[in-house]
Amino acid sequence: MGYLRTTIERMQGYVPGEQPQAANLVKLNTNENPYPPSPRVIAALQESLDERLRLYPDPGCGSLRARLGAQYQFRAEQVIVGNGCDDILNLCVRAFCSETDSLGYFWPSYSLYPVLGDIQGVQKCEIPLDPQTFQIDAHAGLLRRVRDLSLLFVTQPNAPSGVWLAKVELQRVIEETRGVVVIDEAYADFAGDDCLDFAREYPNVLVARSFSKSFALAGLRLGWACGATELIQGLLKVKDSYNVNRLSQIAAEAALEDIDYTREIVRRVCHTREELTVSLQTLGFRVHPSQANFVFAAPPAPLTAEAWFTALRQEGILIRWWDEEHLREYARVSIGTDAEIERLLVATQQMVKSTS
Amino acid sequence: MGYLRTTIERMQGYVPGEQPQAANLVKLNTNENPYPPSPRVIAALQESLDERLRLYPDPGCGSLRARLGAQYQFRAEQVIVGNGCDDILNLCVRAFCSETDSLGYFWPSYSLYPVLGDIQGVQKCEIPLDPQTFQIDAHAGLLRRVRDLSLLFVTQPNAPSGVWLAKVELQRVIEETRGVVVIDEAYADFAGDDCLDFAREYPNVLVARSFSKSFALAGLRLGWACGATELIQGLLKVKDSYNVNRLSQIAAEAALEDIDYTREIVRRVCHTREELTVSLQTLGFRVHPSQANFVFAAPPAPLTAEAWFTALRQEGILIRWWDEEHLREYARVSIGTDAEIERLLVATQQMVKSTS
Repeated sequence: MGYLRTTIERMQGYVPGEQPQAANLVKLNTNENPYPPSPRVIAALQESLDERLRLYPDPGCGSLRARLGAQYQFRAEQVIVGNGCDDILNLCVRAFCSETDSLGYFWPSYSLYPVLGDIQGVQKCEIPLDPQTFQIDAHAGLLRRVRDLSLLFVTQPNAPSGVWLAKVELQRVIEETRGVVVIDEAYADFAGDDCLDFAREYPNVLVARSFSKSFALAGLRLGWACGATELIQGLLKVKDSYNVNRLSQIAAEAALEDIDYTREIVRRVCHTREELTVSLQTLGFRVHPSQANFVFAAPPAPLTAEAWFTALRQEGILIRWWDEEHLREYARVSIGTDAEIERLLVATQQMVKSTS
Repeated sequence: MGYLRTTIERMQGYVPGEQPQAANLVKLNTNENPYPPSPRVIAALQESLDERLRLYPDPGCGSLRARLGAQYQFRAEQVIVGNGCDDILNLCVRAFCSETDSLGYFWPSYSLYPVLGDIQGVQKCEIPLDPQTFQIDAHAGLLRRVRDLSLLFVTQPNAPSGVWLAKVELQRVIEETRGVVVIDEAYADFAGDDCLDFAREYPNVLVARSFSKSFALAGLRLGWACGATELIQGLLKVKDSYNVNRLSQIAAEAALEDIDYTREIVRRVCHTREELTVSLQTLGFRVHPSQANFVFAAPPAPLTAEAWFTALRQEGILIRWWDEEHLREYARVSIGTDAEIERLLVATQQMVKSTS
């Protein structure tokens, strides 16, 4: 019929991980936090369920931006809030890339980036990470490729590998890129370091963050970014006026007021991650050193990742597997509660035994 | 510095109506419902404030789409849900307009449309309504102009005039347009008719709706659209996977379950609108016949709309005024509670008296 733009007609939409509504599943497939959000978040929301829902939210998220700025040492005007971090990533493509511009991203990383490029109709430039270590190898050829990008997305720590990208290599990439580098730190709270210093130091760097993982608020859609005022001003022009709803703004502020709670659940997730890594290694798995709230693990032959993924599914345990080169030997396991991870390990042990 | 796309660098962002956080104001400037949302919405939200907030929402809004379809006689796959109706309008521009395509909209109408065009970097085609009646005059010249548009936005009933556009003229426009016609029915629940039949009948028509006005849920950001499956499929590819958060989906379903409540508050708003219209006319105002939850009114000379707007502001009563040709003689008043409208009328009467 031809009503759609050609680029939209041809493209595939992004395929999110399954979000089954059935209970009783062990859901380790979309990197949600296994622990509930802070009780103060629930209390703040409870106090807000009244006739004020009829009113538009603050379009500028003024109070929340000031609080985020105070927490992470940026001025409020260096901060933007989005309807999830995906909203922020989308705004970046729209503000920085015309149809004739190039959008770069590493591979493997978050599979939304090329989809956002297709929607905008831009040139895509996929830059491979080292297929063994999943690190950036900033050799001359790679630096030539990033130079003329209008926008480069970097996932730090990387997904789905969980690997922390060496900052010295990343810094070389930033200094070489003429366009904007967006460091997607959705998982950074689970890492020992972050790249907020790059956002403070370089005029072309933004760091994007999420309340979905560490703050256990995936259901409320909250993301944000910080960096040079000029870049943030551009994103503010493109964002929908009322992109962040009233309850989400309230929840985010309450979560920041109780940051010690978040630090504690993050600590527990990291602890379980280290235990899971060792347990899987003991069973013969290859596991990448993860700085995120998941591990990327390759089972010992003859058990394949696909068979592991499929068999766990039959046990009601969801993990994630991609049928793609360099990825299909691994599956990604989100960190659950200790009980959930125990259930995964017991089932996995059986599978390893019965195939060997 | 040149990090922004030229189109973004040059454009002005959309300027929403003021959303002051101060209490005690009579807020009649952004067309919110003066009545609270259904008690069943509040109850459903209360039951949902628990650890499920850590989980991603249903990306497909499956249950809500089915319910909307059942309510308005569309199949679920003919429905899309957005983070407010503005999200839907934005998706339409992205799915149907490349940078070389033309986006059309009537003038005056919702001032977001040209901003969405600028963000996408498309050609804009502003089509004047009759400046006296604010109706579509579907003469040959106008029909020639709409023919090659990729997308045409129509606000029905129109804003800021409140006028119901004659469907026979609108139908001629739809039949002439080769691209997609999006009928933005944000205010249609306050009108005596709607254009859902056009969305059922024409393969190039979508109707967009909102929960912000009639359902009194502006704070939760909920909009939706319905029409031909092919068009909806295109929008689904472009939308953010998790664009509608968990609580908003629950609130919308609860609101639809209690549609009688919404019908009752809509009836009260319409009643107050008719009373306000007569009262303003009695004071010498010219008031367009409104089918929305606001009136567009021009004060009797020598009182100007600007002076009326400014003096009301000093009384703590916010209405909206635009300093633009054909508009500056009017101001727009959202329908409030009877007490709020009484306060507006008492103040207005004083102003008319003291200037005459």
